Amino acid sequence: MAHVNENYAKLPGSYLFSTIAQKTAAFSEAHPEVDLIKMGIGDVTRPLAPAVVEAMHAAVDDLARVDTFQGYGPEQGYGFLRDAIAKHDFQSRGVAIDADEIFVSDGAKSDCGNIGDVLSVDNVIAVCDPVYPVYVDTNAMAGRAGEYDEAAQKWTNIYYMPTTAENDFVPALPTTPVDVIYLCSPNNPTGTVLNAEQLKAWVDYANENDAIIMFDAAYERFITEEDIPHSIYEIEGAHTCAIEFRSFSKTAGFTGARCGYTVVPKALVRDGQSLHSLWNRRQCTKFNGASYVIQRGAEAIYTPEGSAQIDETIEYYRKNACVIKEGLERAGLSVYGAVNSPYVWCKTPDAMGSWDFFELLLEKAHVITTPGAGFGPSGEGYIRLSAFGDAQATKEGVARIENMMASR
Amino acid sequence: MAHVNENYAKLPGSYLFSTIAQKTAAFSEAHPEVDLIKMGIGDVTRPLAPAVVEAMHAAVDDLARVDTFQGYGPEQGYGFLRDAIAKHDFQSRGVAIDADEIFVSDGAKSDCGNIGDVLSVDNVIAVCDPVYPVYVDTNAMAGRAGEYDEAAQKWTNIYYMPTTAENDFVPALPTTPVDVIYLCSPNNPTGTVLNAEQLKAWVDYANENDAIIMFDAAYERFITEEDIPHSIYEIEGAHTCAIEFRSFSKTAGFTGARCGYTVVPKALVRDGQSLHSLWNRRQCTKFNGASYVIQRGAEAIYTPEGSAQIDETIEYYRKNACVIKEGLERAGLSVYGAVNSPYVWCKTPDAMGSWDFFELLLEKAHVITTPGAGFGPSGEGYIRLSAFGDAQATKEGVARIENMMASR
Repeated sequence: MAHVNENYAKLPGSYLFSTIAQKTAAFSEAHPEVDLIKMGIGDVTRPLAPAVVEAMHAAVDDLARVDTFQGYGPEQGYGFLRDAIAKHDFQSRGVAIDADEIFVSDGAKSDCGNIGDVLSVDNVIAVCDPVYPVYVDTNAMAGRAGEYDEAAQKWTNIYYMPTTAENDFVPALPTTPVDVIYLCSPNNPTGTVLNAEQLKAWVDYANENDAIIMFDAAYERFITEEDIPHSIYEIEGAHTCAIEFRSFSKTAGFTGARCGYTVVPKALVRDGQSLHSLWNRRQCTKFNGASYVIQRGAEAIYTPEGSAQIDETIEYYRKNACVIKEGLERAGLSVYGAVNSPYVWCKTPDAMGSWDFFELLLEKAHVITTPGAGFGPSGEGYIRLSAFGDAQATKEGVARIENMMASR
Repeated sequence: MAHVNENYAKLPGSYLFSTIAQKTAAFSEAHPEVDLIKMGIGDVTRPLAPAVVEAMHAAVDDLARVDTFQGYGPEQGYGFLRDAIAKHDFQSRGVAIDADEIFVSDGAKSDCGNIGDVLSVDNVIAVCDPVYPVYVDTNAMAGRAGEYDEAAQKWTNIYYMPTTAENDFVPALPTTPVDVIYLCSPNNPTGTVLNAEQLKAWVDYANENDAIIMFDAAYERFITEEDIPHSIYEIEGAHTCAIEFRSFSKTAGFTGARCGYTVVPKALVRDGQSLHSLWNRRQCTKFNGASYVIQRGAEAIYTPEGSAQIDETIEYYRKNACVIKEGLERAGLSVYGAVNSPYVWCKTPDAMGSWDFFELLLEKAHVITTPGAGFGPSGEGYIRLSAFGDAQATKEGVARIENMMASR
């Protein structure tokens, strides 16, 4: 008799975005004349860079001819892309990461989810609160989370580290032992960053306790301040305790094209085993490499032409973030993130609940946002706005919020 | 202190193809003047169909314009592709599979590897011997295989079902309880198929014992005989006991482009839970959908033009399979597979070991094959040849084998 993985039944429903969609649909049905502006969306809207488009067309043509056809590629990614990543994302910034420490994949979500395959079920997981739900759900599926406590909105075996305005969004070192720590900087959803000193404390903790840091740097290209690390490997000691996830989704508009990568340094060893070897074995056994066409597109990001085009798009989103931040501040709201991130994290006025403020913004400003409570209990009292929309619509949305707040 | 998944350390080295490469390289170094012909390769060599190329170019252009840009797609695959698959691969053959029972992915290897996520670690796994190593290794990584017995070349907790010439390559029903059964037809590596009656026995066994069949149909497009099922869902009762894996890799040359799909019928329930819901949750949490560009390419396979072009390429490989089969038979060898498969499974002469025959063919015929022992202990005494090579080279390789056998 076949049995299923019993941990799946413990997962609470993932209702955040479907609830938002339902509330939005109900409002639109009652008010069909209203033009709603979406400012909650976590997906990009700008097209691929011309250099990327050109490279993908050339790659498709490679597959069309017998002499340039590409069959199975290396599970770890093509050398041309791993070399470009190592050179431009790490070595050019003085960070010692070799091409063969880079594993190209179909995206950071897959890697964040699959990395648990190489870890024992017995590890204690630590996450920030609020948090990107994939870290929590994938560990719950593997049996590392214990039971879900509906009232507390927390798993019994997960160690939660609140990151709120009260602690400047910097997670405190744990007071009971943890084994695997997820850190995301620039952070989704709060838009805040960890500086070198703050990261160093975590690297030291991990090395002293033989823990592993899972560092999600999917938004690093949005960093504007000079002293903020783009990679955890800029921190001394990180090579012996950290795995880093990177994505082309937000960097270069690849949410639909699909490509990302994971760095597993050869110096990272636990239980006497190389995590690099374990991850390599996992990928070779359960993955057949990312698409040749898409990897050729990703390679083009690292050409001078492609890089400049990517920066233009990032600048477009950055200006949106600035427009949102400044507008909300003019409206008298407390705003975090935005400076080094496409996300703006906004405190609700008068200690309003985050779903209440979401509904107020929907009904009075005709703007769709994301309630912070959807990212964990410490997200209560905040909403998330995203800079990935159209520039004109973003300006209009912010003006509506300002007007609404002025007339309260 | 973080601990790693201890099951990885139990895995034996995966030396088959690297050993072949080493032996080949050593021979080439000693005999640089010899032109070796590769007939062991399991990868396609013909370019993508023109209709697929055209569709991929159009999809890249979609991503280049703001009004047609595609961000995150559905984790389950785009409706346009799921609809085309349901209609052309199933409903047109009278098989009741709905579009929403189809999960598009980056390939069948990923799905075969990841499907274990939704199953309990306690299930007993049954595999054919010889076997595609991914089924075994992924279950060993999850802790379902027990310990590896180096002498027997078997895992202690896996149930092996020998498929050899002695039983016409038809696995016998188990004599002790098993929970999850991997079947592959047309088979890799033996090239043989299971007919409707043989499959029905397995479907009945699975339903009677609440087991699950993992049916790998990656090579179904190579079937030529009319009475051989292309899908397990052609068998009555399969919807309540089977998951089916399909691939565009060999069907349409997508080994480098990456696309496949998995069918999980809604009627498949174990422990009171829908496997469809479990797999959907897994994919939504750990996967972000296959690339838009590649899914548009896959959709083009189902147009009348694309379908005809795909058939032409399949016919090219089929002729190679026929050339190999007939040539080896003329050489006095016993040959299996080939008729409904791109693989030819050949018994070694005079009960020679499969590595010995591999070396003989390398040294005397200058042809590279794959020793059957690499696919499991019951593969000993066979070699695998592949029809995926160039037609002229295949003819030449076969002629060399014939000459070698004639002069023995």
